[in-house]
Amino acid sequence: MKITNTALTAILAFLFIPDMIVGQSASTAARDFRQANEHRLLTDYFRLLAIPNVASDTPNIRKNADHLVAEMQRRGLKPRLLEGADKKVPPVVYGEWMTPGATKSVIFYAHYDGQPTDPADWAGSKPWEPVLRSARLDQGGKIVPFPKAGERIDPEWRIYARSASDDKAGVFAILTAFDALIATGIKPTVNIKFFFEGEEEAGSPNLKEILTKHKDLLKADAFIVCDGPVHQSGRKQVVFGVRGDVNVDLTVYGAKRPLHSGHYGNWSPNPAMTLARLLASMKDEKGNIIVKGWAEDVEPLGAAEMKAIADAPQYDEQLKRDLGIAFTEGAGKSLLERINQPSLNINGIRSGDVGEQARNVIPTMATTVLDLRLVKGNDHVRQVGKLRKHIESQGFYVIDRDPTDEERQKHPFIAKFIHVSGSYNAQRTRMDLPVSLAIIDAVQKTVSEPIVRMPSLGGSLPLSIISETLDGMPTITVPIANHDNNQHAENENIRIQNLWDGIETFASLMLMKWT
Amino acid sequence: MKITNTALTAILAFLFIPDMIVGQSASTAARDFRQANEHRLLTDYFRLLAIPNVASDTPNIRKNADHLVAEMQRRGLKPRLLEGADKKVPPVVYGEWMTPGATKSVIFYAHYDGQPTDPADWAGSKPWEPVLRSARLDQGGKIVPFPKAGERIDPEWRIYARSASDDKAGVFAILTAFDALIATGIKPTVNIKFFFEGEEEAGSPNLKEILTKHKDLLKADAFIVCDGPVHQSGRKQVVFGVRGDVNVDLTVYGAKRPLHSGHYGNWSPNPAMTLARLLASMKDEKGNIIVKGWAEDVEPLGAAEMKAIADAPQYDEQLKRDLGIAFTEGAGKSLLERINQPSLNINGIRSGDVGEQARNVIPTMATTVLDLRLVKGNDHVRQVGKLRKHIESQGFYVIDRDPTDEERQKHPFIAKFIHVSGSYNAQRTRMDLPVSLAIIDAVQKTVSEPIVRMPSLGGSLPLSIISETLDGMPTITVPIANHDNNQHAENENIRIQNLWDGIETFASLMLMKWT
Repeated sequence: MKITNTALTAILAFLFIPDMIVGQSASTAARDFRQANEHRLLTDYFRLLAIPNVASDTPNIRKNADHLVAEMQRRGLKPRLLEGADKKVPPVVYGEWMTPGATKSVIFYAHYDGQPTDPADWAGSKPWEPVLRSARLDQGGKIVPFPKAGERIDPEWRIYARSASDDKAGVFAILTAFDALIATGIKPTVNIKFFFEGEEEAGSPNLKEILTKHKDLLKADAFIVCDGPVHQSGRKQVVFGVRGDVNVDLTVYGAKRPLHSGHYGNWSPNPAMTLARLLASMKDEKGNIIVKGWAEDVEPLGAAEMKAIADAPQYDEQLKRDLGIAFTEGAGKSLLERINQPSLNINGIRSGDVGEQARNVIPTMATTVLDLRLVKGNDHVRQVGKLRKHIESQGFYVIDRDPTDEERQKHPFIAKFIHVSGSYNAQRTRMDLPVSLAIIDAVQKTVSEPIVRMPSLGGSLPLSIISETLDGMPTITVPIANHDNNQHAENENIRIQNLWDGIETFASLMLMKWT
Repeated sequence: MKITNTALTAILAFLFIPDMIVGQSASTAARDFRQANEHRLLTDYFRLLAIPNVASDTPNIRKNADHLVAEMQRRGLKPRLLEGADKKVPPVVYGEWMTPGATKSVIFYAHYDGQPTDPADWAGSKPWEPVLRSARLDQGGKIVPFPKAGERIDPEWRIYARSASDDKAGVFAILTAFDALIATGIKPTVNIKFFFEGEEEAGSPNLKEILTKHKDLLKADAFIVCDGPVHQSGRKQVVFGVRGDVNVDLTVYGAKRPLHSGHYGNWSPNPAMTLARLLASMKDEKGNIIVKGWAEDVEPLGAAEMKAIADAPQYDEQLKRDLGIAFTEGAGKSLLERINQPSLNINGIRSGDVGEQARNVIPTMATTVLDLRLVKGNDHVRQVGKLRKHIESQGFYVIDRDPTDEERQKHPFIAKFIHVSGSYNAQRTRMDLPVSLAIIDAVQKTVSEPIVRMPSLGGSLPLSIISETLDGMPTITVPIANHDNNQHAENENIRIQNLWDGIETFASLMLMKWT
C-alpha cells in the first residue's frame, strides 16, 4: 500500500496507529505541509533571523522574546515568559499544548539567542540581515534574491545569518512541526511543553534559577533539545550527552609599559613568548593534553555507547579533506573518540598588534581565552583547578587580578587566571532507557538509512543543570543543522534541506509512544 | 672665573675659543636663548606635533614636509625637498648653512614621520592632539592646560603626542640649537647640512635611492643622527652603532573554516597552539635564542667598545624595578650586553578573539609579527634564512602565500613566511676615530657628569644604507629623548627637560672641531 495522499494519511493516523505508520504519517504530513508553505515559512524565518540576538543586548533579546510570544499566541500555545529575578535576564519563552488522554509529557527545547559576532568579519552579508546563497560561501555560493511566492526554493541553498543554525533553526523546526501536525489534523501523542531559552550562548547563568522557580510547570518525562549539527555524513543523529564547558581567561605580563623592541628586545621579557611557552606546555607534539590528571576522573563509556561509536559512519578522512587539514590532535584517534574526552582549546590569543597596526614594540601583556570541554566524570571546578595547578607548576604566580608592583618585583612569571562564570558539567543519558529507545525509533522512522546514535555531542549545553534541577529528567538532543554551518563563527549558515528535514524529525517526535 | 653673562659668553666665543670654553658657551647660549623663548618654542613644537605623520599617509606627510620647509625658509637655510622617483614617497627635507672658513661638513639627521598608532589605545589624549601632563601618565600625570605666555613651564612636565620623542624631538632640537647660536651671535664651526627623513618608521625603503641621487649635495665628514633615548640613568650618551632590523610576518593554519570548539575541539588542529609551539621552540626557558647559528656571524666588540660598556652606569636593577619585571631574557646578562647580540622579538600575535568578542571556536589561522634585530656581522637576508630553516626543522612546510587545497592535504603543518621589505643591516662606527672623539667631547662639555659611550644602540636606523651609499661616511647617533617615552607605542611622550637638554647638546655639536 502506497500512502501518498495527505488526507488519507491524516485519517489513518486517527484510526490505526502502529508505530511505523505514525512515523511515516508524521514525515509525510510534515513534508506535504512544508512543500505547500515553503515561501511563507522562509519569509517568517527571515523575519525571526533579522532580530539581533546576543544575550547581553537586552532590548533586542526582548524583541526576540516578544516575537516568539506572538507566534505562539497565534497557535494557541498559551505563551508566557519565565523570567529571572533580575529583569535584564533574557526570559525563557514557554508555551504548552496539552493532548487529551496523553500520559507522557515532553519538553521541546531550543534557544533563540546567538553567539556575539563582529559584523566586520562577515563576507558579503551582515549577521542580522539574512541572505540566501546558492551554495556554501567558500564553495562559490552567490547571493540569491529572495524568491517570489511560487518560485522554486532550491533545498541546497543556504541561509546566511547569525543563529540561522544555532539555534533559531531549533525554534523554527519545533514550531513548524507542530503547525504541520495541527494543519493536517494529526494529534500529538504527548503533552508538549515548548521551552525556548534566551541566554544559552552566554552560558545559561540564570537557567537554574528559572527551572527551580517553575519546577511544577516543567514536570515532564523527557527533555528533548534541538541544537547542534547532524552527523558530518549528513545522517540524522540522536545524541544522549553533551560535554560540559568552562572558559578560562588567562593573561601574562611583560614590562609595565610598552617598550621599543630594539632598545629592550632580548632583555625585557616578551609576554607573547611567555604565553606561547605556557600554552605549549599544555599539549605534546601529537596534540595530547599533558596537564596532570586531565582525564583521570573520566567515567568510561558503557557497552551500548561503545557499540554506537563503532556503528557510526567512518567520516574522518572525508572531513579532513573538507576542512583542509592533514594533522589531527590525539595521535590519530577518531573524532568520535576524541569528543568523548575532555578538551583544551585556545579560542583566541592576543598580544600587541599584527598587520597594518603592527609596531616594533614589546607588548605589556598577552591574553588568551581557553575553552575546556568536560565529559561525564569531570567536574568543572576540579578541571579548572588542574589547569591552575599546571600553570603554577610551570613557575607562574597565579592570581585573579592584575599584579601589584610588589608582586611584579617578587615573581618572575605572573598569570592572571579568571574562571569565567557560566560553567557546567557534562550530561549523559543512558542509551537503553525506554524513552531513549522511543526517540531513536521516532527519528529512524523519518529516514531509510540508519541514523547515528551518539553517546555524546562534542558541544555543550547546560543539560546537567536541567537534569539535576528537574530531578534527573532524561535529556536527549536531536540536532538538525548541517555540520558545516560555521556555528559560533562569522558566516553562520543553514542548508535549507536541513531546515525541512528538521520539521519532519520533530513532527515524528511529537508522535512518540513508550511505556 | 665664573661665566654667567650671555653677552660675555658670546664675545668670548669669538675672541678665544679653546674647546672647553666653546662647549660651555654653546650650552649657556642655548640655555639662555631657550629660557627667554620657552613659551614660543613649545607653541611651535605643538604645531609640528599636531600634523599626523604616518609615512603611508601621503597628504599629511606632505603637510609635515611643507611645514618644515617654511620653518627652514624663515631661517635662511635654503630648504628643498629631496624626492624619490615615485612622488608618493615621503620627501627628505634638506637645508644647509655654509660657515665661511669651515673645512668640515656635518649632516644633522632626524626623521619627521612616526610609527602608526591606533588612537583608541591612547589614554585621555589623541596621538596628533598634543597635550601637556604634569608627570608620566602611569605615575598619575594629569593633563595641564597649555601655559599662557610668561607662565612657568615645569621641565618635568611631559608632552604626550605621536613623535613627541621619536623623532620630531630631533628635528626640534637641531633647528632650535641652530637658532640659539645665530640669535646669540655664535658662528657654527662646521658647514651644517640638515637632513630630515619622512619614512624612517616605514623602514626607509627609498632612502638609498634619494642618497644616491644627491650624493654630491651630501658630501660631508660625519652624519650625526638625533634619534632614540638617552641612557636609562638620564645621562646623555653618544652611540656609535645601531642594530639592523628585519620583520617577518608568520601565519600558521588550522581548518579552512572556523569550527565549533566543542564539536571539533581536541581533534581539529588549533593554529594558536601550533603557533605557540613554534614560537616556544625559538627560545629556551632563560630567553636565549636557540635558532641554529643565530649569533655565529656576529663580529666581536673591540677593546674601546668593551671598555665603554664596562664604564657605563649600572642601571639594570633600577630599570627592572621601574618596568615591574623580575625576569630578564638571557640568563641574567646585562641590557648592554644583550643589545650587542641579535634579537628575536614577538611584536604581536593574534588568533581568534579575546575579551568581549571571544567565542568558542577553533580559529582558522594564527598570525605573528616577528622583529629581528641584527648586530655587526649579521646579514639581514642570512638571518631571515636561519629563521626559515628553523621553522622547517620544526616540521613546517614554509611558503610565501596561503596554501592551496593540495598543499593542505599533503602537509600537516604549513607556515606562510613573509620577509617584510625595508630590512637593513647593523652599522657601527669605530669609537677611536677623530670625529668620534670630537663628538664625545662636544657632548661631554654640556654636562658635568660623565656621558655614556655606547658601541651600539638597541634600536635600529638605516645607518648601514647611509654609510654604504655615502662612501663609508661615519654615522654617529646622539639621542635626546627620555628612555621612558613609550616610543613606538601608544601614549608616546617626551619630558620637557629632555627637549631643553637636546638643544644644548646640538648647539655644542655645531661648534665641534677636529682634524
